[in-house]
Amino acid sequence: MTQLEAAKKGQITESMYQVARQEGVPPEAIREKVAFGTAVIPKNSNRHFESRGIGAGLKTKVNANIGTSPSHHDVTEELAKLNAAVKAGADAVMDLSTGGDLDQILDTILRQAPVMVGTVPIYKVISKLMAQQKAPVEMAADDLFSEIEYQGRAGVDFITVHCGITRRNLAVLKDCDRIMGMVSRGGSFMAEWISAHGVENPLYSRFDDLLEICRQHDVALSLGDGLRPGAIHDAEDRAQIAELVTLGELARKARRAGVQVMIEGPGHVPLNRIADDVRQQKRLCDNAPYYVLGPLPTDIAPGYDHLVGAIGGAVAAAAGVDFLCYVTPAEHLHLPGIQDVHDGVIASRIAAHIGDLEKNLPQAGDWDAAMSRARRCFDWETMYNLAIDPPLARQRRGQSEDHSRDVCTMCGDLCAVKTFERVAL
Amino acid sequence: MTQLEAAKKGQITESMYQVARQEGVPPEAIREKVAFGTAVIPKNSNRHFESRGIGAGLKTKVNANIGTSPSHHDVTEELAKLNAAVKAGADAVMDLSTGGDLDQILDTILRQAPVMVGTVPIYKVISKLMAQQKAPVEMAADDLFSEIEYQGRAGVDFITVHCGITRRNLAVLKDCDRIMGMVSRGGSFMAEWISAHGVENPLYSRFDDLLEICRQHDVALSLGDGLRPGAIHDAEDRAQIAELVTLGELARKARRAGVQVMIEGPGHVPLNRIADDVRQQKRLCDNAPYYVLGPLPTDIAPGYDHLVGAIGGAVAAAAGVDFLCYVTPAEHLHLPGIQDVHDGVIASRIAAHIGDLEKNLPQAGDWDAAMSRARRCFDWETMYNLAIDPPLARQRRGQSEDHSRDVCTMCGDLCAVKTFERVAL
Repeated sequence: MTQLEAAKKGQITESMYQVARQEGVPPEAIREKVAFGTAVIPKNSNRHFESRGIGAGLKTKVNANIGTSPSHHDVTEELAKLNAAVKAGADAVMDLSTGGDLDQILDTILRQAPVMVGTVPIYKVISKLMAQQKAPVEMAADDLFSEIEYQGRAGVDFITVHCGITRRNLAVLKDCDRIMGMVSRGGSFMAEWISAHGVENPLYSRFDDLLEICRQHDVALSLGDGLRPGAIHDAEDRAQIAELVTLGELARKARRAGVQVMIEGPGHVPLNRIADDVRQQKRLCDNAPYYVLGPLPTDIAPGYDHLVGAIGGAVAAAAGVDFLCYVTPAEHLHLPGIQDVHDGVIASRIAAHIGDLEKNLPQAGDWDAAMSRARRCFDWETMYNLAIDPPLARQRRGQSEDHSRDVCTMCGDLCAVKTFERVAL
Repeated sequence: MTQLEAAKKGQITESMYQVARQEGVPPEAIREKVAFGTAVIPKNSNRHFESRGIGAGLKTKVNANIGTSPSHHDVTEELAKLNAAVKAGADAVMDLSTGGDLDQILDTILRQAPVMVGTVPIYKVISKLMAQQKAPVEMAADDLFSEIEYQGRAGVDFITVHCGITRRNLAVLKDCDRIMGMVSRGGSFMAEWISAHGVENPLYSRFDDLLEICRQHDVALSLGDGLRPGAIHDAEDRAQIAELVTLGELARKARRAGVQVMIEGPGHVPLNRIADDVRQQKRLCDNAPYYVLGPLPTDIAPGYDHLVGAIGGAVAAAAGVDFLCYVTPAEHLHLPGIQDVHDGVIASRIAAHIGDLEKNLPQAGDWDAAMSRARRCFDWETMYNLAIDPPLARQRRGQSEDHSRDVCTMCGDLCAVKTFERVAL
């Protein structure tokens, strides 16, 4: 039985109890959210780890994309990235490997990860074809379903599938004046496949087959936004919204079949349209959890896209986004390394926490108040421990001249907090 | 004659022409903004550099705070910070030095800076007292006015003065339940002085004397928010708003006297109150330019406060803030170093640019579109040149395996943009 099926039947699973404990809410509230589909607990029935929930009323979660590429693949490095992501506080990782021994890499990550693991199954299918000098369009529809089945058995907790790349939605895209066209890897492969074969996307036409595989292993669906904008100029156009409508329809079908489902979102979006985008997704997708990449409210900062993504992510989370996919400083330039993974997770966690403050989650406000109280009484140890990245905070101040005093080198004895202590109001 | 006096008389100054050229708007539009006080051009009549405007309808500007502290002072390092700030694209620097030979440091910065220079004059007065083992409350009111006069003659373009720390506003603060109390250095010194002497703040009671000094050298006033919140918990309380009301009254007086004026803003502010804060400042201060520090929408990320400040700064700029004071990764931990200055300026410039996109400044949108067009056709040289930090973007990608190919190590031949080129829509 999937978490969703159990919830619908009124059963509170062990995973729901775990999530309830983490979030500090009653187990019955978690069951209800899962039953309504406003929250999901991605956890393959073949894997064992402490479950986390994603959805309305829960802490905003963070995903770190790791994985190899054709020109850079080393399983040891991937494990180091996994550890860096988990240590920095990621709630999930996605193995997006496209180079090296893909089965072995996924298997290793599934065995080692103490958090949920997602994939984009079409990457493996296409990567294997290309490694054999075959063209992506030589993929057979059954190859894709076989791979999804393999991954379901292997223990993958959630998969991104580009079911919304339909002939109809590509026709809508044709008449959009985009600069970047498509920037989704999986989405563009599906588009190429559809255009080469002249038939419908099998992930759409055989959606019921997909649901059956997912139901069997309780793999959560993450309906990918293959038509997401890859430039501020392209944001929120007819193609993007047409696909979102399709994803909303499919989300309802998935829930009816007992399959947990999230919706993926953009991408490059101007700052003032992010909240509108979130509200629209919630409306069109019956309040399914929203999983966004970034969003990036400007295109001009390669090398700093973790920061740009944190700006968009904070605004998105504040508006109701449930799950942030990190963006690293390597975005638009190269495959992220271990430090990039760390920096990306921290940036997204800051955004998620700012979102949680706006969502009025009590734990979030308590955290800030505790930090400020420690600051007020110069309790540096508590400040370090409460910092989003304790080792960094400790190390930075430890290198300054005043590290053994209670003040810092910014103000020294001219510290405003000390001066204010002398004020008799 | 000050820029404001000239503007009121219908004269377009050389500085207004310079600003008009930079912003791509007619000189008469600049004159009008300066005359109405919705924009300022901080430029001491004794200094020579390419003027920049701050205010409504102009690009969001960025300030970098530099300066020594009692335990860390080296004039060579300050010059390196100045150069790092200017190279990274700062529109202004403030010399906040409190350690070493303060006159020499300020003099050096004023001679070397190709951008406007601001100060907080009370820092120098108090630092000199403390260096003589005297208590801050031993300051005489005339010491402060003399220092301001000295700095006006020396060429300082704008000064932060905490005129809103009045007996009345401190009484309001008394009954606010703050965690952090006051976190403004200049503000807390004024509060201590008022409480020790039992008389009104001379910067408030003798505001006309202050205006006369500023008018003489065309020093722009930046009315400091001494009661700004230093914790999310403390944000937007009665004390903060009472001071803002006072600053609005003083801003009107300053304009009437021909003195250009900006208003300073918080501080630590929850994300969803930032836009309200900006709208309120504009209303209460007759649309005077708004100069904010951060704002920081969370307290929990020491080591990453440049990123937190960029989140708050982007939202603030989008809501109409005109001038962002950077926050560096050193904030809350130690005095910023050269790399911190660079990182802080870049983070604030990203926030400012995202604000400019929302302000519909045509140059802003053109920048993003040009970057995306370069991305679309794999024109890496153009991408590097358009990046907010060209050397970093070039260096990062240059270290990856695929740097001599048109693709990057993220996707290699599985590049979505390349795949999409093969799609026949």
